[in-house]
Amino acid sequence: MTDATAAPAFPKDHVAAPEALRFPDPLVAVDRPQTRTAAEEARALVQVGTIASLSTLSDDGHPWGSIVTYGQMPDGAPVILVSTLAEHGRNLVRDARASIVVQQVEQFGDPLDNGRVTLAGVMRAPLDDAERSIAQAAVEKVSPAAALYGGFGDFALWILDIERVRWVGGFGRMDSVTAEGYATAELDPVAPSAGYAIRHLNDDHADALLDIAQAITGYTDATAAKCTRADRYGIDLTVETPRGTAYTRAGFAEPCTEAGGLRAATVELTKRARA
Amino acid sequence: MTDATAAPAFPKDHVAAPEALRFPDPLVAVDRPQTRTAAEEARALVQVGTIASLSTLSDDGHPWGSIVTYGQMPDGAPVILVSTLAEHGRNLVRDARASIVVQQVEQFGDPLDNGRVTLAGVMRAPLDDAERSIAQAAVEKVSPAAALYGGFGDFALWILDIERVRWVGGFGRMDSVTAEGYATAELDPVAPSAGYAIRHLNDDHADALLDIAQAITGYTDATAAKCTRADRYGIDLTVETPRGTAYTRAGFAEPCTEAGGLRAATVELTKRARA
Repeated sequence: MTDATAAPAFPKDHVAAPEALRFPDPLVAVDRPQTRTAAEEARALVQVGTIASLSTLSDDGHPWGSIVTYGQMPDGAPVILVSTLAEHGRNLVRDARASIVVQQVEQFGDPLDNGRVTLAGVMRAPLDDAERSIAQAAVEKVSPAAALYGGFGDFALWILDIERVRWVGGFGRMDSVTAEGYATAELDPVAPSAGYAIRHLNDDHADALLDIAQAITGYTDATAAKCTRADRYGIDLTVETPRGTAYTRAGFAEPCTEAGGLRAATVELTKRARA
Repeated sequence: MTDATAAPAFPKDHVAAPEALRFPDPLVAVDRPQTRTAAEEARALVQVGTIASLSTLSDDGHPWGSIVTYGQMPDGAPVILVSTLAEHGRNLVRDARASIVVQQVEQFGDPLDNGRVTLAGVMRAPLDDAERSIAQAAVEKVSPAAALYGGFGDFALWILDIERVRWVGGFGRMDSVTAEGYATAELDPVAPSAGYAIRHLNDDHADALLDIAQAITGYTDATAAKCTRADRYGIDLTVETPRGTAYTRAGFAEPCTEAGGLRAATVELTKRARA
């Protein structure tokens, strides 16, 4: 007997035959390389981005999406400058509950196999003087026009007090993060330069990526490899094999500790693959 | 005496000195070139895009933002394929009210001076057989993985029945569109190729753009011009002058009627500027 008032029951896993999501395994067993934590992934996405989608509530309770530029407070909380001439600005005055979604800026591979993060919480305004000057500088850093609009009476600065963080890294990579975990996560020094590095590796060093796929990730039958992500701990590869497409990762000898660290780390990885 | 229960009062225009938003005028008067209607702008954004942000309602009524790929039904209604393993999928089953926001794919100039559109309405599932086969083909067109996931029991296709459309084209360019106006708006044949054309004009034909700015748009004192938008009726230019930065537009002799039409139209515009 079913209870018509009960919450809907949802499956806990994909409703499909297990082999539907099976990818080729490496032919040689390898250690699993270190990855950023979900909190670090979330911070890295927000750190690199400048444009977000904002979800607010319209006066009839309908969810309303819009596009904003955002700056960042020192703890990674997004700050936005919005006008009550816009629907999202009026929505926030009535009900400050909101979500902010940030997508990976430079995308490689399948659009859904890229990072995005939802920060849900309550927007807060007005800010006190000390916070306002930090927030204003943060929004001007991403949109020069904010210097002009910041002085208009219909605009206000809002900071998102984060309550929930949901990170999706791509197919099968996702996790929830606490607000505290997000705020205290270590920033990745190579996050801002990763997009450039990935393009450079794919455009000019496809041979090195293939050597890395074969020698480091255990796909000894790889016929091509493409880099889809890079962080201070390693690079993610999409690898073509006669057995199908595989998704793997090669770890650096040491984590990168500076902004330009990906160059030396990938050179070392290539040398190790060819040793 | 104020009524504490009244809805907040919002300004009807920017609360700022009028000169704060004044840009340099052309030095020679010119006719205002034709533009796409707001409905055509909205359709063009959705037509070219493949990734959107989806706003739904969490179980506590909080607005929840997420990223989806979307396909398009023949009338421009977005269709998405989502799993109840994801929060947005569970949200839709409980409350199907939603918004979908699409941003201009290739962006030129200030991030907030680019197009975006919010489509708000109610998501609908399950679809009948005829509609489902069109919808499934539409999502597979933008994400090959949809062919796999479409067969999973936790995934469902949802079509947005649009109620409200809000288009924002950039600074000072915005309008609301009815659902019927959106569904019946004419598609722009050059929309899919506009990004390429803009990059090519800026990279290889800066001299032509400057001639156009000076001779066609009336900014005879222009020192540089950059193309920021292109559609079947003309191109938008950001023009540098000794009097400051101006935003203008040059109209084509005839609207483009085919996918590759921007090339001939901009060649004609350049010849006319140099005549």
